[in-house]
Amino acid sequence: MKCVMTRSAVPSTTRVNSVSIRAEVINPEIRKTEDKVVDSVVVSELAKPLTPYCRCWRSGTFPLCDGSHVKHNKATGDNVGPLLLKKPKE
Amino acid sequence: MKCVMTRSAVPSTTRVNSVSIRAEVINPEIRKTEDKVVDSVVVSELAKPLTPYCRCWRSGTFPLCDGSHVKHNKATGDNVGPLLLKKPKE
Ligand code: FES
Ligand code: FES
Repeated sequence: MKCVMTRSAVPSTTRVNSVSIRAEVINPEIRKTEDKVVDSVVVSELAKPLTPYCRCWRSGTFPLCDGSHVKHNKATGDNVGPLLLKKPKE
Repeated sequence: MKCVMTRSAVPSTTRVNSVSIRAEVINPEIRKTEDKVVDSVVVSELAKPLTPYCRCWRSGTFPLCDGSHVKHNKATGDNVGPLLLKKPKE
């Protein structure tokens, strides 16, 4: 197929074994009005013995993990997962 | 410029105001031999009053934050930052 090549048609992404190495945002949607999304957890206030926190930026309950990393990993071949905060029994 | 259009030359990325909305890996390098990178923190064992944990997947001290999110945000226009674990004084 013949075509007219334009700058927008051919982004500068370099691909190595289909892993993109061009700089990309990793948070497409969460709190984009904030300059930097930082969250704090006062660990003494954790309610449960195990609380997963999101590191995939796809959770519907961010900063908590809702399992959305599974869909992201499947769609992209990625291998990200949550940070588990563990509170030992008192 | 005329060209031959091939599948690899024109990825299916859709761009809106130069934010990529094609599914991309967000972790290009960290522990890629693991199916899913999950880390645990036993919160009672935190040494310092404030410990930042990485959510940008660019830290040289992952799972801890080493400030690399600043470079990532500058390079991409992203707005990601760490999860701060706070341990109140006893
Ligand atoms: S939903 Fe993001 S790490 Fe689980
Ligand atoms: S280095 Fe990744 S959030 Fe700071």
